[in-house]
Amino acid sequence: MRIVIDAMGGDHAPEAIVKGAMLATKAHKDLTIILVGDESKIQPFLTSTERIEMIHTTTVISGDDEPVKAVRRKKDASLVLMANEVKEHRADACISAGNTGALMSAGLFQVGRIKGIERPALSPTLPTIDQKGFVLLDVGANVEAKPKHLLQYGIMGSIYAEKVRGIKQPRVGLLNVGTEDNKGTELTKEAFQLLQQAPINFVGNVEARDLLSGVADVVVTDGFSGNIALKTVEGTAMNMFKMLKATFMSSLKTKLAAAVLKKDLKGLKDQLDYAEYGGAALFGLKAPVVKAHGSSNDRAIYSAIKQTMTMVEHRVSETIADTVQSMKDMEVSE
Amino acid sequence: MRIVIDAMGGDHAPEAIVKGAMLATKAHKDLTIILVGDESKIQPFLTSTERIEMIHTTTVISGDDEPVKAVRRKKDASLVLMANEVKEHRADACISAGNTGALMSAGLFQVGRIKGIERPALSPTLPTIDQKGFVLLDVGANVEAKPKHLLQYGIMGSIYAEKVRGIKQPRVGLLNVGTEDNKGTELTKEAFQLLQQAPINFVGNVEARDLLSGVADVVVTDGFSGNIALKTVEGTAMNMFKMLKATFMSSLKTKLAAAVLKKDLKGLKDQLDYAEYGGAALFGLKAPVVKAHGSSNDRAIYSAIKQTMTMVEHRVSETIADTVQSMKDMEVSE
Repeated sequence: MRIVIDAMGGDHAPEAIVKGAMLATKAHKDLTIILVGDESKIQPFLTSTERIEMIHTTTVISGDDEPVKAVRRKKDASLVLMANEVKEHRADACISAGNTGALMSAGLFQVGRIKGIERPALSPTLPTIDQKGFVLLDVGANVEAKPKHLLQYGIMGSIYAEKVRGIKQPRVGLLNVGTEDNKGTELTKEAFQLLQQAPINFVGNVEARDLLSGVADVVVTDGFSGNIALKTVEGTAMNMFKMLKATFMSSLKTKLAAAVLKKDLKGLKDQLDYAEYGGAALFGLKAPVVKAHGSSNDRAIYSAIKQTMTMVEHRVSETIADTVQSMKDMEVSE
Repeated sequence: MRIVIDAMGGDHAPEAIVKGAMLATKAHKDLTIILVGDESKIQPFLTSTERIEMIHTTTVISGDDEPVKAVRRKKDASLVLMANEVKEHRADACISAGNTGALMSAGLFQVGRIKGIERPALSPTLPTIDQKGFVLLDVGANVEAKPKHLLQYGIMGSIYAEKVRGIKQPRVGLLNVGTEDNKGTELTKEAFQLLQQAPINFVGNVEARDLLSGVADVVVTDGFSGNIALKTVEGTAMNMFKMLKATFMSSLKTKLAAAVLKKDLKGLKDQLDYAEYGGAALFGLKAPVVKAHGSSNDRAIYSAIKQTMTMVEHRVSETIADTVQSMKDMEVSE
């Protein structure tokens, strides 16, 4: 299997990317990784060149670049050259921890949409209290959505949860303002009807309050609301840790108690760190395109590589394509 | 001042409601409270009848009742009779900890909208790490919104933050998927333009990640997204406390350390408890209508009463009406 990685994307690039790639090629003997970026900056972190290929470029797309423009204009940027390897079938999948919008844009224009999928969806796996996690989609690949898009998100999320996360008959929920069937906007009401008829285990409307309790394995929503939910989880967790820290530092007594708990609290923080579940996959493209978290360290990059390998092995993109096609055939035959 | 309260609404009604009313009438000598509900159930908790009036009814709207139908059919329900007191000008404002939808419905149909306000907005104050809090609106009075509605939410929220929360030139932000001016949906893009021209201190787009960091004093959004944000904060905080508790109970060592920290952690929990900031006001109605949290205890009810008194004293409804009218006059003269 060949996976191509943007070595220059992310807060800790290229170090974290190259070290993550080293961990992966060492553990998986059938894996070849193609690193795209500045060779002189990549070299210092290479501990082996076995099953490592390189594509040299000094052009990068930064986090501040306007995504669509950057992808169109910087034809030799590491992220663009990376996507091109997938387009030209020289790699099975690609990963970047860089500019999310640029990755979505390169994925859409170069890797391309699966026939029948109208909108790709950015789909991270978030933590739950039972540590099983759930797939949330879309979190912002498209800010506006139609009922049919939400239906396709449900199908793609369900296939991913089953194939990659190993969950049988994943419970698919629709994010809504209440659990009753007739709740929400025109969008959610129509999507509800479509999801109910889809070949998935649709469990109905779910509330944002219950997300981390593990109310569903896949939660479907439009990109705007999904983005709000994702960032609210992040912001609330971050601020609570800040408050906890302030509480612990408030007196000698609390400092001593906190010292005793240090290791356990670190465990709690890890439990909420969704880099543990890999990156956010962009569903609906002809090959796996994975966005690793911008702050990824080498372990997080390694997680994203393993996740991407599983997507390739279990033919997630092909299964999505087949499912969408068979649903179309059914429509026609009806 | 006369405030009417639904004595039968909420998880701890009528006890918490009546005890909260006792605290309020004792502390505020110019306050008369009208309790609506079952006299035989209210009586046991009355420690004084000074400036307490009662309207007896045994009919209640429960949390399971379908809001609009319940308000129309149960004409003698405590919540409906409560709103009627405001409609008939026998009370200046009303409070219920009961069925939120029914309260919004009674508010809309009986108390009535301010002329020029197209949609009322449900507006709780959420906690921030600096303990100043911020007003979030709408969190679900209307699941769909037009740009003009978001403009009016911004104006109403700003007036409330200034008059009731004592913040000079409150910073009003628009909840969005990024901070750049051109981000988001058609709705947010158009609302951005309108808010920029409004007579408020509009600070632009804000991200959900920064809400609890205190990025704005007032955050404007449509009712669907606001509901998702609110419930995600609640759910994340609740699950983190559960995880913390599990961490603390995991061994004798952690139990001992947690015992030392108990009081400090209680403080942290209180800091995140938004009942401390009072109830969620329903902005845009002719008189203050306040939804106290369903799980309110007597202190939370007292907080909601104080908040409602401030709304009456500072003429929030009247100021909203005047501001909307003057903006209309400006439009006409342009």
